[in-house]
Amino acid sequence: MSKYCFGIDVGGTTIKCALFLNDGTILDKWEIKTNTDNGGERILPDIADGIEAKLKEKKIDKAEVEGIGIGLPGPIEENGEIACAVNLHWGRKNIEKELNELTGMAVKAGNDANVAALGEMWRGGGKGAKNLIMATLGTGVGGGIIVNERIVTGAHGAGGEIGHALVNPHETIPCNCGNKGCLEQYASATGIARLAREALEASQKASVLREKERVTAKDVFDAYKEQDELAGEIVEKFARYLGHALAIFASVSDPDVIVIGGGVSKAGEVLVDCVQKQYEKFAFSACKKTPIKLAILGNDAGICGAAKLILSR
Amino acid sequence: MSKYCFGIDVGGTTIKCALFLNDGTILDKWEIKTNTDNGGERILPDIADGIEAKLKEKKIDKAEVEGIGIGLPGPIEENGEIACAVNLHWGRKNIEKELNELTGMAVKAGNDANVAALGEMWRGGGKGAKNLIMATLGTGVGGGIIVNERIVTGAHGAGGEIGHALVNPHETIPCNCGNKGCLEQYASATGIARLAREALEASQKASVLREKERVTAKDVFDAYKEQDELAGEIVEKFARYLGHALAIFASVSDPDVIVIGGGVSKAGEVLVDCVQKQYEKFAFSACKKTPIKLAILGNDAGICGAAKLILSR
Repeated sequence: MSKYCFGIDVGGTTIKCALFLNDGTILDKWEIKTNTDNGGERILPDIADGIEAKLKEKKIDKAEVEGIGIGLPGPIEENGEIACAVNLHWGRKNIEKELNELTGMAVKAGNDANVAALGEMWRGGGKGAKNLIMATLGTGVGGGIIVNERIVTGAHGAGGEIGHALVNPHETIPCNCGNKGCLEQYASATGIARLAREALEASQKASVLREKERVTAKDVFDAYKEQDELAGEIVEKFARYLGHALAIFASVSDPDVIVIGGGVSKAGEVLVDCVQKQYEKFAFSACKKTPIKLAILGNDAGICGAAKLILSR
Repeated sequence: MSKYCFGIDVGGTTIKCALFLNDGTILDKWEIKTNTDNGGERILPDIADGIEAKLKEKKIDKAEVEGIGIGLPGPIEENGEIACAVNLHWGRKNIEKELNELTGMAVKAGNDANVAALGEMWRGGGKGAKNLIMATLGTGVGGGIIVNERIVTGAHGAGGEIGHALVNPHETIPCNCGNKGCLEQYASATGIARLAREALEASQKASVLREKERVTAKDVFDAYKEQDELAGEIVEKFARYLGHALAIFASVSDPDVIVIGGGVSKAGEVLVDCVQKQYEKFAFSACKKTPIKLAILGNDAGICGAAKLILSR
């Protein structure tokens, strides 16, 4: 019976790797620089080399390893293919097949945002839940939907692309995706900074935010914690967009828990409180009390979710 | 090896029953009146008696039967319990356990709207799909979400309760659920009739709809097919609400196909065309071409889905 597995989280700059016991204990972690030269041709071989070296170092036989789970920044299809990964300089590629050929071990691949959601379900803010919605509020808004402990991949690998739920049909400025009015335009770090700029321009109200040359999402939440009135209005607008969207998502999958992660979530419990309040206004009766929680794994969400991916394949 | 299964669809007035071959062929159908006397205590025994009689009539041994799938009008939890079913006069009840004890056969229960979605996936408008969103536009708006050929039940049995996605935060009139602005208020037969009343009051435009004493959803679509301008505006409003909502749902589960059923869908392909056009405006790029199709099983969706439920348990 296998005792170990590997969790790999591939980013555009760094590849995070970890050796796990099958119960979720992290035995060792290491990082590799992401080498995107020549269409990223070294990325999978570098990962394979790192794994082989680790097995040798720890004197672990391959027969004791369940396999390798890997999270990647792009849409992964059911057959283990990635359609493209701009940040890795990859076109279409069958990750599971290629990494299996390089290592001789079973491989299961998933989209990085989805895999992070699985990690938070297994060992993080959603521990104990079988059904979960995760919203990752960073530069953009990513998402992951877990139903019965499994990632919802979808027909085009676009399951959980909740950042591009179109929540404001009246928006005039385009999102990076080409549509206008995506959740990402209001609930990401960049989106919150824009809401702040607009609020500062639209009103004469005094605010500590006026002292900043370039207001960030963190500035907004810091000012909000200091009872700055204008910051309160900005946070309420952000929370209304996010809470309303989460309520609609919950009418689809009815999760046990909603987890909020990403850089913006560092604002902490005050953020959750505002979003929960707005969520309850919009949610269907059966789902009104669904808890909203902070992600807790931070940078480890990806490796944890990747490990869970291979364990529950 | 089993060859047969039963599909049961319990409604407030009638219980539809069918004996299937495991390949989906319907061998026989019959109906029972729903007896709601004394807290609906006869409903499950009546179903069991009907099944026993059918087995005897067809000379089928229980060992040849895979089991019984049953769709019910209420939220079904993972353990086979129904929380309540107002139309059946039931409170909390473990359907799977009780019907198993009555028949000695395996039982799998599901919510009726979800089960209909499974039926349309198996034998209907979504045949061949593994991931599907179904919207049933009747007196209300029901829904079912299928991910990897399985119903999304959710934490409170409220998975697929898309009729109560709150799509218009500016609504002043309450929905039956207590919130204001649910999809059901614009996309159900009653919702469309209301949109029509409002449009007729708000404008002086000539319309064949003014000749009706009480405008129905069917009247609106009939007039729309005759190029009635005001009917066109009403249909566009309906399609915008529904298309926009479906686009948000698709950002969650990224289905292979979206199926529209229920009485309103009898308007036919013109309805699908309007909704598809609006859907494409709001959908995320990867999902823009997701086809929207009409349900085709009609009243058989429930029994078919129930049979599939037991076969894929």
